Amino acid sequence: MSALWPYVTPGIPDHLFERLPGIPLSQREVRLLLLGYLRLRADSVLWDIGAGTGTIAVEAGLLCRQGKVIAVERDPEVAQLIQTNCDRFELTNIEVTVGSAPDCLSQLPESPDCVLIEGGRSFKEILQSIWKRLLPDGRIVVTVGSLKGLYAVSEAFAELQVRNIEVAQPAVNRLETRGNQQFFAAIDPIFVLSGDKLG
Amino acid sequence: MSALWPYVTPGIPDHLFERLPGIPLSQREVRLLLLGYLRLRADSVLWDIGAGTGTIAVEAGLLCRQGKVIAVERDPEVAQLIQTNCDRFELTNIEVTVGSAPDCLSQLPESPDCVLIEGGRSFKEILQSIWKRLLPDGRIVVTVGSLKGLYAVSEAFAELQVRNIEVAQPAVNRLETRGNQQFFAAIDPIFVLSGDKLG
Amino acid sequence: MSALWPYVTPGIPDHLFERLPGIPLSQREVRLLLLGYLRLRADSVLWDIGAGTGTIAVEAGLLCRQGKVIAVERDPEVAQLIQTNCDRFELTNIEVTVGSAPDCLSQLPESPDCVLIEGGRSFKEILQSIWKRLLPDGRIVVTVGSLKGLYAVSEAFAELQVRNIEVAQPAVNRLETRGNQQFFAAIDPIFVLSGDKLG
Amino acid sequence: MSALWPYVTPGIPDHLFERLPGIPLSQREVRLLLLGYLRLRADSVLWDIGAGTGTIAVEAGLLCRQGKVIAVERDPEVAQLIQTNCDRFELTNIEVTVGSAPDCLSQLPESPDCVLIEGGRSFKEILQSIWKRLLPDGRIVVTVGSLKGLYAVSEAFAELQVRNIEVAQPAVNRLETRGNQQFFAAIDPIFVLSGDKLG
Repeated sequence: MSALWPYVTPGIPDHLFERLPGIPLSQREVRLLLLGYLRLRADSVLWDIGAGTGTIAVEAGLLCRQGKVIAVERDPEVAQLIQTNCDRFELTNIEVTVGSAPDCLSQLPESPDCVLIEGGRSFKEILQSIWKRLLPDGRIVVTVGSLKGLYAVSEAFAELQVRNIEVAQPAVNRLETRGNQQFFAAIDPIFVLSGDKLG
Repeated sequence: MSALWPYVTPGIPDHLFERLPGIPLSQREVRLLLLGYLRLRADSVLWDIGAGTGTIAVEAGLLCRQGKVIAVERDPEVAQLIQTNCDRFELTNIEVTVGSAPDCLSQLPESPDCVLIEGGRSFKEILQSIWKRLLPDGRIVVTVGSLKGLYAVSEAFAELQVRNIEVAQPAVNRLETRGNQQFFAAIDPIFVLSGDKLG
Repeated sequence: MSALWPYVTPGIPDHLFERLPGIPLSQREVRLLLLGYLRLRADSVLWDIGAGTGTIAVEAGLLCRQGKVIAVERDPEVAQLIQTNCDRFELTNIEVTVGSAPDCLSQLPESPDCVLIEGGRSFKEILQSIWKRLLPDGRIVVTVGSLKGLYAVSEAFAELQVRNIEVAQPAVNRLETRGNQQFFAAIDPIFVLSGDKLG
Repeated sequence: MSALWPYVTPGIPDHLFERLPGIPLSQREVRLLLLGYLRLRADSVLWDIGAGTGTIAVEAGLLCRQGKVIAVERDPEVAQLIQTNCDRFELTNIEVTVGSAPDCLSQLPESPDCVLIEGGRSFKEILQSIWKRLLPDGRIVVTVGSLKGLYAVSEAFAELQVRNIEVAQPAVNRLETRGNQQFFAAIDPIFVLSGDKLG
């Protein structure tokens, strides 16, 4: 139980995370959807590829108390940021790995039952590498912001015969304060593709 | 642990719930956001006012293992539907109460630390009744689909001095299959207002 | 000048059109965007492929006073509906053609400088046929509701070397009255792809 | 006919306007909707209150060839920007007035049959002033980005007995290029309220 987040529901406010300029952060509303699509168990092993600020890693670490999160991040400074955020939430079940997917994936010690890919470029190669390691009945969730990425993931899902494919496009508006007025601001829409590996 | 949903993350697919024609169901994506805004603890007491199909009650019951959900529903037949859904998910910590808010609220046995109001009409009276019973540091979350409701809740929140008010408008698009094609369908946008009671 | 619509701006309310059950109608807000992307001149020749209720044909006919709209529709009964709507707005510069794209396209008498494709299946074949007939500096606008359609049109645009490609996804919410309350209802999102033929 | 925009449809691309940093510009997709709701005639007199970059004034000036646009703008430097954009599009039927609404409104020479209010603060006072000058059968369209503004305009519309009130919330996503990738970006949602004055 984290003193900073003593709840059983995910949805940590964005401002509770340490941030670095330019490093993407999955906004709370998007994070809630991603965690829902991931369908974690208390003992799940989650690979978080392109973990960025580490918000998903932290939320998943809090939920998977008997499980583990392996957060993969290319940039050592960003990896340090993820570690800082894990420490803020007193998490010891998150392993931060500096490396570049897909190359580093074969080195990861434990096979996952859930994988999240947040953005990236070589979707096809990454998905092929992951698919071999994903345990039976495993879940895969991918976020893409670009149309090209949407095509690539959609094609790769078909080739890998991912089951129960779902595509959602969350487009949450949030009331934000600017000056002494409140305006609705849009969260830039991403596409979330998810599916299962046959058991 | 439910055999039907052995996960620590919410987000039960809509089709796993028993339904009745005409009875509203909070769609999965909206539910994920609502549960996130509710900020439940393992021992939370949640009042679910206007519980409809019971999807939130079920999800919250699964998360608050040492807590309790009191689901309030006006229509006895719909209350039976909620009970059926609780039974499907083997939940024993949900109490379904037939009654009409705000009248029935003073009779509810336990004071809540979280309250969800899904739709409804007499928002102001309901919010005033609830506010008296809501425990210190309690959370309140209200969904409204109408502009009139948005005004009423917003004004009532100001009068009750609700803290940390947030307003979000989820507008998720989902890829749905019609015939042998897949189309993006919009989930009708609702407004979600949430806030805290001072400790 | 039509007695029913004496304005220089498009945006005829949906209820001013005659309708048939099951026949799609481009809702006003979507129509406003489509006409904007079409970039019509007073003397434009527009091909409207899959014209449905004929709302775009009518709006374009009102705008292109020295031009012409050729509305192509497979179903004779729907073609009659388009004609009825043209008569309502006193339009004489719209030619309704019963036929199935791409087969019927080679028979069309005049080459277009603007083409709108609303929905459909054999996007690639239709686009190839149209591209040959589209005049230099011509505009092409395609609406797709399915992900498959989005891929197909996007690929075809690349193969045909369409210039200045734009993709937009309008997702307008409208306040609608149900009973004595007003709710925000979402217009199902479509993708609008548009671009130019090199002069 | 403008050499820069020889079309009968509105929807001038944003980049064709001269801009100043910090001065708001109604994006093309929003502009298309606003012009549609305004329902202009060839001889309309439009008051454009808070005209900003002047994009609506330019589009309306192009459409209302026998009419006139009176663009009201508080900041003299911004008023100059509007004039520059009018000159770019060779428009002579736009009158740019430096002044602050509602005070300056009583001085405006011609009564309008269409009024657009883009943002602002004292909505009620402005609307009351305008309502007295608006011609019978006149149209009024207001854009608001804040929840407070939405309430204020909605209440003022009710008090003034505006007819045929419509509320829409356009939320267009546009594919934008960043680096060598294309991402969907959301246009921040605004509310557009429109209605008629009884004839």
